[in-house]
Amino acid sequence: MKILWIVPITSPGDAQINKTASLLKRHAYPGTEIIIRKVSRGTESIESRVDEAYATIPIIEEVLKAEQEGFDACIIGCAGDAGLAAAKEAAHIPVVGPGEASLLIAQLIGRRVVLLTTLPERIPSIEEKVTRFIPRPQFFIYPVNIPVVELQMNVEKTIDTLVEIILKSKERDQADTAILACLGMKGMAEEVQRQVKIPVIDPALAALEMAQALVTMKLSQAKRIYPFPPLKRRFL
Amino acid sequence: MKILWIVPITSPGDAQINKTASLLKRHAYPGTEIIIRKVSRGTESIESRVDEAYATIPIIEEVLKAEQEGFDACIIGCAGDAGLAAAKEAAHIPVVGPGEASLLIAQLIGRRVVLLTTLPERIPSIEEKVTRFIPRPQFFIYPVNIPVVELQMNVEKTIDTLVEIILKSKERDQADTAILACLGMKGMAEEVQRQVKIPVIDPALAALEMAQALVTMKLSQAKRIYPFPPLKRRFL
Amino acid sequence: MKILWIVPITSPGDAQINKTASLLKRHAYPGTEIIIRKVSRGTESIESRVDEAYATIPIIEEVLKAEQEGFDACIIGCAGDAGLAAAKEAAHIPVVGPGEASLLIAQLIGRRVVLLTTLPERIPSIEEKVTRFIPRPQFFIYPVNIPVVELQMNVEKTIDTLVEIILKSKERDQADTAILACLGMKGMAEEVQRQVKIPVIDPALAALEMAQALVTMKLSQAKRIYPFPPLKRRFL
Amino acid sequence: MKILWIVPITSPGDAQINKTASLLKRHAYPGTEIIIRKVSRGTESIESRVDEAYATIPIIEEVLKAEQEGFDACIIGCAGDAGLAAAKEAAHIPVVGPGEASLLIAQLIGRRVVLLTTLPERIPSIEEKVTRFIPRPQFFIYPVNIPVVELQMNVEKTIDTLVEIILKSKERDQADTAILACLGMKGMAEEVQRQVKIPVIDPALAALEMAQALVTMKLSQAKRIYPFPPLKRRFL
Amino acid sequence: MKILWIVPITSPGDAQINKTASLLKRHAYPGTEIIIRKVSRGTESIESRVDEAYATIPIIEEVLKAEQEGFDACIIGCAGDAGLAAAKEAAHIPVVGPGEASLLIAQLIGRRVVLLTTLPERIPSIEEKVTRFIPRPQFFIYPVNIPVVELQMNVEKTIDTLVEIILKSKERDQADTAILACLGMKGMAEEVQRQVKIPVIDPALAALEMAQALVTMKLSQAKRIYPFPPLKRRFL
Amino acid sequence: MKILWIVPITSPGDAQINKTASLLKRHAYPGTEIIIRKVSRGTESIESRVDEAYATIPIIEEVLKAEQEGFDACIIGCAGDAGLAAAKEAAHIPVVGPGEASLLIAQLIGRRVVLLTTLPERIPSIEEKVTRFIPRPQFFIYPVNIPVVELQMNVEKTIDTLVEIILKSKERDQADTAILACLGMKGMAEEVQRQVKIPVIDPALAALEMAQALVTMKLSQAKRIYPFPPLKRRFL
Repeated sequence: MKILWIVPITSPGDAQINKTASLLKRHAYPGTEIIIRKVSRGTESIESRVDEAYATIPIIEEVLKAEQEGFDACIIGCAGDAGLAAAKEAAHIPVVGPGEASLLIAQLIGRRVVLLTTLPERIPSIEEKVTRFIPRPQFFIYPVNIPVVELQMNVEKTIDTLVEIILKSKERDQADTAILACLGMKGMAEEVQRQVKIPVIDPALAALEMAQALVTMKLSQAKRIYPFPPLKRRFL
Repeated sequence: MKILWIVPITSPGDAQINKTASLLKRHAYPGTEIIIRKVSRGTESIESRVDEAYATIPIIEEVLKAEQEGFDACIIGCAGDAGLAAAKEAAHIPVVGPGEASLLIAQLIGRRVVLLTTLPERIPSIEEKVTRFIPRPQFFIYPVNIPVVELQMNVEKTIDTLVEIILKSKERDQADTAILACLGMKGMAEEVQRQVKIPVIDPALAALEMAQALVTMKLSQAKRIYPFPPLKRRFL
Repeated sequence: MKILWIVPITSPGDAQINKTASLLKRHAYPGTEIIIRKVSRGTESIESRVDEAYATIPIIEEVLKAEQEGFDACIIGCAGDAGLAAAKEAAHIPVVGPGEASLLIAQLIGRRVVLLTTLPERIPSIEEKVTRFIPRPQFFIYPVNIPVVELQMNVEKTIDTLVEIILKSKERDQADTAILACLGMKGMAEEVQRQVKIPVIDPALAALEMAQALVTMKLSQAKRIYPFPPLKRRFL
Repeated sequence: MKILWIVPITSPGDAQINKTASLLKRHAYPGTEIIIRKVSRGTESIESRVDEAYATIPIIEEVLKAEQEGFDACIIGCAGDAGLAAAKEAAHIPVVGPGEASLLIAQLIGRRVVLLTTLPERIPSIEEKVTRFIPRPQFFIYPVNIPVVELQMNVEKTIDTLVEIILKSKERDQADTAILACLGMKGMAEEVQRQVKIPVIDPALAALEMAQALVTMKLSQAKRIYPFPPLKRRFL
Repeated sequence: MKILWIVPITSPGDAQINKTASLLKRHAYPGTEIIIRKVSRGTESIESRVDEAYATIPIIEEVLKAEQEGFDACIIGCAGDAGLAAAKEAAHIPVVGPGEASLLIAQLIGRRVVLLTTLPERIPSIEEKVTRFIPRPQFFIYPVNIPVVELQMNVEKTIDTLVEIILKSKERDQADTAILACLGMKGMAEEVQRQVKIPVIDPALAALEMAQALVTMKLSQAKRIYPFPPLKRRFL
Repeated sequence: MKILWIVPITSPGDAQINKTASLLKRHAYPGTEIIIRKVSRGTESIESRVDEAYATIPIIEEVLKAEQEGFDACIIGCAGDAGLAAAKEAAHIPVVGPGEASLLIAQLIGRRVVLLTTLPERIPSIEEKVTRFIPRPQFFIYPVNIPVVELQMNVEKTIDTLVEIILKSKERDQADTAILACLGMKGMAEEVQRQVKIPVIDPALAALEMAQALVTMKLSQAKRIYPFPPLKRRFL
């Protein structure tokens, strides 16, 4: 099967994209081909609802193009699932978000989930999305207070911070499962899990698993809740 | 006070906008000045999440411009509250949506609320928004099966259809309050209420009341849940 | 329009009532006339469910009288909304409670709401009312530990206490919006808001706004959930 | 132990009160003495929130008197639990409502509960109380459309009506348990249960059981949520 | 009436069983005969879901035998309600669990409930059961960190620990009611209540009350949600 | 990776087991080896909570044996997830249930889910499990009224019945996604989906996908909510 991973922001350079590609390839099943494409406009990074608005149009365009080219599924490479509902509406093929994918996996294995994000400002909009999957008093969101772009600069420091916050939440909130809810933290789950001794979910991998599962099971988003948008003149 | 009413779609002609203006003026308190402005790009009408995505950017721009010009509040002229969260984030001044405003007024006076929309395809995304305000088994959404653009063409027929559906929901769902949840139905609530004998809310008026209330009370959206988006390069 | 503000307790003197009158007049829209009337029996102050029971009968009587005299709406001057459901049942004209009005405005602008009350004993009955509007883990109630009658004696001290508790709740509960949930705190919201830097709602003003909104929109409580009580012999 | 059954309405004659007395005595445990007292003022029957307001003051007075006379518990003889929260506040000894008692017993044995009431107008206020105990989509309320005072006039007809409605709800709502939620239906549960073949709860007996249980277990309402009302001047 | 109390674990000796017998007899109503029987296989103590699985088969067998012998009701002597749903399915006569019984009594008298268990490992499975009766943010579970078998060895120490934890929860969680949610704590509620000054529920007594209530009211579990299991070959 | 599929009932013959094996092999990723083992005792089929109790012990034994033999994950081959929580407790390696797996996939693609089961008697216990994943008014359970053992005898008839019920639920409940919630219906999802034109989930495949996903992501059930049961004497 052929899966498109959409980088929904304009800033990542080749090095970073290659890192994502290598992580995904290492975890894909044999027979899964993953293509990565970056949007050419929108926003540098997604840190607000305004950013999400700017990212959505290019995401929709990428999804529609992928569908025409014969891709089997798309993943939106943002743990905040920016533009996800609109993209699901626009396409026949399954579109998966790392946020929703990791929240569902968290429910399979745990109950009280701690989510790590970048900055305190992200919490309200993440909270809105999480409550659709997990009832409110069972999740906890904490910021690492490191901007997205710096997360991968000093991986060791990022991991130390993640470990410290998860251990605190284990103690205070009885958290039993963690989600590294920013794709800038991708590739770190395994090491963090080794240190915190509770399951730690990498949303990039969760999305990859779910996309492959839907294709294998011949499923896609229900058109009754994501109906195709009527044809009309739209331009920006 | 000075309130901007944003027409978030490109299709309405002068006649229709004048009708809105006259309705709002008739209901505004003395001292309230209402300006109506139409976006110059985006989408013809809002009937899907994809349409919402296209409408959001011009809405944000209008809100920011209004703030700089000294407006006291903005109303997004769409009962689906398109772009509302992003607009609240972007601005200091209060931004109000007719959808949220009418749902709150409905809770003040009733309990089991029936919402009328245009087409069945609109129901899933409206449902998502309503559940944030009213617990799920207490609202009911029905389509009139008349496209937005035709609602005002034959007002009598539209009113007849609205009355018929509300009466059925009164019987079947024990609905006690109705919301005409598409701005194409604006100006009809009073006559419909006369016929169905339960309260009928016009979202345009609800939004106008709430915007005036926030300005009078010197309140605006909480910046803790609608933080200002960080400055960065965004373009489409 | 003509609105009756019912003082539902027997203790307030003329000075205090004049203060309320002046606050309301300052915030009413041109064309709104506000009359204040105090009940002549019942209870000195409302600090328990027993007090609410004593206050309810005179409130119902005042509402019925107001309706006969041609008032357009009534407001029950108690942030605990004492007697509200019974009064809504008894009348055709809208009856509004400051508690419900401020909870609805809070949902329009924020998400995590802190409510300030007088004494710890008030918390359980307030909690019961709040849960009808806001899901449980999203509000927080704290007492200022100042009896109702002393709140207005030393306004500066009351404001200092309010500010201190709200700032703590901002930190601990991530509260983003505050309600001064006792009418003894009325007129202080603006100054408190200036200091705590999150929106602060004055229930007296919220009720005034909502009452004016309902009258303007020609709406009243749904008779399906507040049916008129059958005629019968009732006496105390 | 000594339990006071308060008849909270003024209309019942001696015949009806004797009927209640005999039902209660037949089901009380050896050693339980039940006294029945009727309020001397308030309202003829409880069919609205206004009625509840009129009934509450005399109920509180009866409860306080019973406590001084050494009663071990009080039951408010109204399936709508009129005045219950205020009475719990006022007393040290346990006060039990037939409504709450039967809802708890229903949860012990079933899941989808159908409640029978007198008139459609009663549904909204009963619904408010039920939702505190049973989540909303799991109960169903239907009126028998017989006024309280006529329920005991033609017992056979009342039972036929109850059976018919419960059988319908068994079919349509998958109801598995029924509550005869008006004390005018008391003494009929056993025969109705025989006919409908699902458990049918008599609130009078449920309240009696719960009152005896609390006294035996030396428990009473938690004063943290039903704090004693402060002493003050209250009069009507 | 004749009630069977099933000791669902193999470890208790005669001394402990006599203690239970004496506690139950002291609180039963005249006319209630209580027989205690211990299972002859299964597990030594119930401290995990695996233990519950081992305890369930012998419990079902005891319940079926009791029914054939003419018992009126059964109580499963485990505050975790091990095997309860299966036992309710298997029998016509009412089967009651101390856990469900005490949670319902807690709702009759209080709102914020603290539950005491033995070890931290018990919390997740207890939490699962409690949420079916009490909405999630309103209960709090703490371990005493004393294994089941040691609870009755040093009663004074156990009571001191219970008191200390309940007092802390009163302060931190505003708990208003407590449940000693392990039958190893039985017989201690009265003394603990004296010291903590909030109601303290003994699940053994709660179950006894509920079983007697169901028999007196001629009620049993609804067969629509606990249907008899079809006959078939089952063996272990 | 090596996954054990546990057939938790004693009745299936070789033909049926081979059918399961072939379905699983056709959908497994290259590199996944699936072994199928049937329990040697317990119950013939799982149609009640009593059956679940009998099935649980042999399931736990199979899971423990699989872990010792080096399996990477286990799947319990029952759409009712019999014994799942106990098995998760007992093992280090992930244990997955087809029920939970399909409910999570349903949330990824739809919102209003219809579940098909065999007989009406199964509904209450399935309902209990579904509510942990999907809020109550959003799922609908219908029986096909065909016993488990007959489902595969006349596949065409089974499919026709499934299609008919799903189409009705699409109409009446606005269901947008279906789950064939009995493993006797396995292998039919694709054809049913073709006819009903909404996504149809096969729990066997959902479980297979989730098991592979957990192994690939190096995740297992959180030991904080599924702690290892303490060592002790247990026997039946």
